[in-house]
Amino acid sequence: MKTREIRLERVPPGVPCESDFEIRETTIDALRPGQVLVKNTFLSIDPYTRNRMKSVLKPDDLIPGRCVGEVIQSMNTAFHPGQKVLSACGWREHFVAQSADLQVLDGALGPLQLYLGIAGSPGLTAYVGLLDYGRPRPGETVFISAAGGAVGSLASQIAKFSDCKVIACAGSADKVAWLTEVAGVTAAINYRDVPDLSAEVARLCPEGIDVLFETVGDQKFDALIGHMRPHGRIVLVGLIGRMNDAVSKPGLTNLEAILMNRLTIHGFGVNDHMGRMPEFRAVLKRWIAERRVAWRETIVDDISNAPNAFIGLFSGENFGKMLVRLDPTAEAA
Amino acid sequence: MKTREIRLERVPPGVPCESDFEIRETTIDALRPGQVLVKNTFLSIDPYTRNRMKSVLKPDDLIPGRCVGEVIQSMNTAFHPGQKVLSACGWREHFVAQSADLQVLDGALGPLQLYLGIAGSPGLTAYVGLLDYGRPRPGETVFISAAGGAVGSLASQIAKFSDCKVIACAGSADKVAWLTEVAGVTAAINYRDVPDLSAEVARLCPEGIDVLFETVGDQKFDALIGHMRPHGRIVLVGLIGRMNDAVSKPGLTNLEAILMNRLTIHGFGVNDHMGRMPEFRAVLKRWIAERRVAWRETIVDDISNAPNAFIGLFSGENFGKMLVRLDPTAEAA
Repeated sequence: MKTREIRLERVPPGVPCESDFEIRETTIDALRPGQVLVKNTFLSIDPYTRNRMKSVLKPDDLIPGRCVGEVIQSMNTAFHPGQKVLSACGWREHFVAQSADLQVLDGALGPLQLYLGIAGSPGLTAYVGLLDYGRPRPGETVFISAAGGAVGSLASQIAKFSDCKVIACAGSADKVAWLTEVAGVTAAINYRDVPDLSAEVARLCPEGIDVLFETVGDQKFDALIGHMRPHGRIVLVGLIGRMNDAVSKPGLTNLEAILMNRLTIHGFGVNDHMGRMPEFRAVLKRWIAERRVAWRETIVDDISNAPNAFIGLFSGENFGKMLVRLDPTAEAA
Repeated sequence: MKTREIRLERVPPGVPCESDFEIRETTIDALRPGQVLVKNTFLSIDPYTRNRMKSVLKPDDLIPGRCVGEVIQSMNTAFHPGQKVLSACGWREHFVAQSADLQVLDGALGPLQLYLGIAGSPGLTAYVGLLDYGRPRPGETVFISAAGGAVGSLASQIAKFSDCKVIACAGSADKVAWLTEVAGVTAAINYRDVPDLSAEVARLCPEGIDVLFETVGDQKFDALIGHMRPHGRIVLVGLIGRMNDAVSKPGLTNLEAILMNRLTIHGFGVNDHMGRMPEFRAVLKRWIAERRVAWRETIVDDISNAPNAFIGLFSGENFGKMLVRLDPTAEAA
């Protein structure tokens, strides 16, 4: 059978563009014993893919990424057609898997694609990153950068569940409205709309920030450091604002604030914490059942649009989890 | 009686110079009930004084600082002439104290001025900063910046006691020789003498740095970040390399290394940990008794030389603890 996949045409020197990717039609051969044929339903679009392009990917490599999908044929007794599976086998419509490539999903948390977002690595990042490394205490002030994204939108709500004052930062009016009205943060800032972010932070956090959950790492980060309260914790979860820089921009200038206020900065990588996934999903299941948690997804259709969806991450076009829907019959969450 | 003290003439805009200070002769009046007259023996010269000049000191203020000395007259039943005391009453030869200003010293650790260096705040900084925040484990690689200073020279030895590979960085051949031959570090780098610090670190730490004990914060810091091993810990103890900058220089550019290697940076302030002093002194007493620990002091005589001693800190003129001897009969340790 024929299927399509996305390969790297060249390593982007700066912001990726469509011509950095190639959509390729390939042929899938008959299964051999032990193999399983999977049809992907949703493909996860994630910022960390940009780092892979810098570090390990070469031209012509398949773009790596997680998908949820369905077994459509099996030569393996452990799998049968109709089973739902999570995998990390790259940007492709169908693929031939070995058992070890597949995690069977029971769908207990809701639509399958939640396992790519709130119930997957982005959700776990928010949960372990904020709670274990940010260690918010009741009454403290938590600042969430990129709060309209897949990770930040959950981190904002976990901070609220921790009985904190939550200041959410996002880049559009609709994200800000959702954060205050649906996610229930204390206040939200549209950073594209305030003339002076530092002044706005000073106004909203006159007592300072205790926990900064940082996923961007651009010049706003340096400004926020200056508003941290003594013994504040910074969880550095991502650097989406710097990923496309050919030459590193100045990063943290305000080292004095780190020393004087005895701040802690933690670089966080969710892959260190995958063993916490069952614990997290059990907590999330309760939150969902109690209707305490909200999420958003931004869906584009057809694998040919995966490169554009990815490029859109860097200008904040995603509201919540950015997904490519590969099966047109699948429904949004 | 007449005595001398040092006051701030103006807040230095950059590197301090002698004319930023004023030596003033003052008169000490007869004691009132409850008061104690102290003659200082040694005055501690510390980098953090530069931050006080930026933040709280105004022209004409007394320069703050710790001293050890002797009670020479007392109108307080808790004190008697001849008692040795530690105080933090500024750069002056004599002063009138209240009980709360004075900590009586028993001299059990050795010469009095040790309480300003290895047995005082610099020693506690090395002890708590390295052990509690650096958390070195046997076999790990610890890098000590400014290892010839009061804090770094002890931190280097504590890292060695922790069964670590210790790489010490200092700015002169005699410091490097002392660090390897007396302090017993694994290797020492004279940063003024290596054409490419990063290449030298790569050569000496091919497996990377686990713990970076950082007291300088200049461009070397940014280079070192790139050599940190995954899950490395950075203890930011001082920023002597940035204190005299009128405008903040670029600080940490390599944020990518913090995220990718899941590093932790701790801003450390010894004042948060003064309650640990008895524990530390008990440990240090044993180390000294066992002749396991070495230290150095750099002594200048006469209070009129305190400004120059202070200025010398920023070019690394101190080897170990920088002290001003106010009593010409006092001996070096």
